[in-house]
Amino acid sequence: KIMASEADKGAEEVQKALIDDDEDIVNPWDVVSSSAKGVDYSKLIKRFGSTEIDKELMDRMVKLTGKPTHHFLRRGIFFSHRDMHQILDLVEKKKGFYLYTGRGPSSESMHLGHLIPFIFTKWLQDTFDVPLVIQMTDDEKFLWKDLTIEETNKLAHENAKDIIACGFDKDKTFIFSDVEYISESTEFYKMMCKIQKLVTFNQVKGIFGFTDSDSIGKISFPAIQATPSFSSAFPQIFNGKKDVPCLIPCAIDQDPYFRMTRDVAPRLGLLKPALLHSTFFPALQGAHGKMSASDPNSSIFLTDSDEQIKTKINKYAFSGGKPTEEEHRKYGGNCDIDVSYQYLTFFMEDDDKLADIKSRYSSGKMLTGELKQELTNVLQKLVGEHRERRLNVTDDIVNEYMKSRKLKFEY
Amino acid sequence: KIMASEADKGAEEVQKALIDDDEDIVNPWDVVSSSAKGVDYSKLIKRFGSTEIDKELMDRMVKLTGKPTHHFLRRGIFFSHRDMHQILDLVEKKKGFYLYTGRGPSSESMHLGHLIPFIFTKWLQDTFDVPLVIQMTDDEKFLWKDLTIEETNKLAHENAKDIIACGFDKDKTFIFSDVEYISESTEFYKMMCKIQKLVTFNQVKGIFGFTDSDSIGKISFPAIQATPSFSSAFPQIFNGKKDVPCLIPCAIDQDPYFRMTRDVAPRLGLLKPALLHSTFFPALQGAHGKMSASDPNSSIFLTDSDEQIKTKINKYAFSGGKPTEEEHRKYGGNCDIDVSYQYLTFFMEDDDKLADIKSRYSSGKMLTGELKQELTNVLQKLVGEHRERRLNVTDDIVNEYMKSRKLKFEY
Repeated sequence: KIMASEADKGAEEVQKALIDDDEDIVNPWDVVSSSAKGVDYSKLIKRFGSTEIDKELMDRMVKLTGKPTHHFLRRGIFFSHRDMHQILDLVEKKKGFYLYTGRGPSSESMHLGHLIPFIFTKWLQDTFDVPLVIQMTDDEKFLWKDLTIEETNKLAHENAKDIIACGFDKDKTFIFSDVEYISESTEFYKMMCKIQKLVTFNQVKGIFGFTDSDSIGKISFPAIQATPSFSSAFPQIFNGKKDVPCLIPCAIDQDPYFRMTRDVAPRLGLLKPALLHSTFFPALQGAHGKMSASDPNSSIFLTDSDEQIKTKINKYAFSGGKPTEEEHRKYGGNCDIDVSYQYLTFFMEDDDKLADIKSRYSSGKMLTGELKQELTNVLQKLVGEHRERRLNVTDDIVNEYMKSRKLKFEY
Repeated sequence: KIMASEADKGAEEVQKALIDDDEDIVNPWDVVSSSAKGVDYSKLIKRFGSTEIDKELMDRMVKLTGKPTHHFLRRGIFFSHRDMHQILDLVEKKKGFYLYTGRGPSSESMHLGHLIPFIFTKWLQDTFDVPLVIQMTDDEKFLWKDLTIEETNKLAHENAKDIIACGFDKDKTFIFSDVEYISESTEFYKMMCKIQKLVTFNQVKGIFGFTDSDSIGKISFPAIQATPSFSSAFPQIFNGKKDVPCLIPCAIDQDPYFRMTRDVAPRLGLLKPALLHSTFFPALQGAHGKMSASDPNSSIFLTDSDEQIKTKINKYAFSGGKPTEEEHRKYGGNCDIDVSYQYLTFFMEDDDKLADIKSRYSSGKMLTGELKQELTNVLQKLVGEHRERRLNVTDDIVNEYMKSRKLKFEY
């Protein structure tokens, strides 16, 4: 029997999602779970054909870098990978790689969920000391949303401020808008064309579920998100080298793009990008889906005031506590479905403190109000500090990050 | 009943071409006629929904420009148009327009057929004194042919030499390769995206006959050929003006691209481009199809020597003469199917001399050998002069024409 390629796995996945009500829907535009605990990620690993991030992989990272494991890894927030061991093989041989992640700029205000890949990418950059390219898909958001291309391009610059405020090293980071960089880089455009030549409508139909009524812009876009996976798209950074390996940290809903990319890579004589996949950051109302930037009460925004943060948590954060104090004291709360507790797993770095909270909440010693207060403290500090750093990111600083240039690495 | 749009007409046309053996096939990739006289152009005008170029239109051009009608118009070689009267309305009001034509660079050597739109476009530029943009679709040829993108880009520069040798005024002409200009013009890329957002796979399937097995590059390409129809794609020439009208001289097989463009234009709030359509230049072997750059004996190349020209005409040019001299003297030759005579209608400017040849050949006074000698003289002179002018077109001169810049017109 002929082995199904990774991209074909994607096609199967879309088909399954369409016919099987029991399965979670996970693609770049929809994440829907039927369970209050959210998406079943171990099932997803099987369906997508990726590999679990296990203790062995984490231990190897610690051994190679001499740095402690990030709590996103320890807690299974980044839970799945493709070819991460090959990246570590290179590190072992003192050979370099680069990081690639991105953002679709569809709204001015970014929320906590949007931060996850960037927080982790910054840690990877610091830990491995490698170049990073960040794609702002203003063309994509123009094609998908009721926005002008001038608007999405402006949003790319606005969002870049939030990304820069995460603390990326300017000497190691190139942020680019598609609209701007495609129209200034011949090598990027050539690579786009090369990918577009190798992918058929049948394939994107299978992987992304496109139909005959979709615009030709949407249909050809996947090649644009694939392009930064290849170092030849950035000759100014990699000095024309085509074989610098790429590692992509992203939420798992973006995997279809990179299954397609990995399918195309060998036919271009290029390396498949490696991936690290994260789970989804739950909406305040519960883990059924991703947060939505269009519903202001489903998420905490990076622009929210201390007061707004407090109110949103108290009013909207889905609780795993019991209806009455008496019952709660007796039976305890359920951390698996409690959004405040979930948020703490993302943002409370201290393992001991988190374990203590879990133990006290589960046993009923800690009430929902107290748990929410813990989260409020953490997020007011986190968002407050982010707000302050963002204030210092001027348009000039954004332009420096977004200027096509050599980084501090030699090739 | 709802009126069919122009693009829908295209869809019907493709359908008809697929089911009706009696009809000629005319699309950007195939031109096939069942008749020795070639494509039935009056039928094509009806099917495509364009308008015949009649005496009234030609007289109006003479009146407005004070210059004689080009023999391509007088002889029905440019035979069909869309909205040419609206272009002349503008000329009447002393308002400007611009010309747009193009070439797909799939081979190094261009043949006589490739010259037709450029000879006519040069005449239009001289007659109306307007800017001209010439698109070299190196990305298209990469997507369609078994060539690398580096090869098609190189061919774009080679072919530009032949185009420049037609005598275009450098101060009024911008020649661009897609690969180069898309990757240096934000406004061009934005316009591409805007068109790609408005055209669905269903539409390009109907207009161009694409299938699910076609690459996403091919599927989205029509937007790239549509883009130069809008002046905002060239801010350096038109100073950002979005409403400079466009006139496109091209062979009628390119019409599907511009039916799509004209369908999209009003939804972008932009002007529909006007068109002037030419018939096809017949192959030496007869008027069943277009000449093919891949069969060296089907065409006379701009690089052919005097000797090659003479040999090809004598050996391959399909003759409308009779089998024996005796029969020919008695019944005369048939100019309608005689390729040498057809070629003279393209390249012998003197109407009286051409009429004399037709009369003598049809009546049997002139033999096939003499007719072929007339054509040989005309083409040896034409190709010889072209070869000489091309020799003077250096790489530096090509770069001057292909540099993104302001032309000598003020906006």
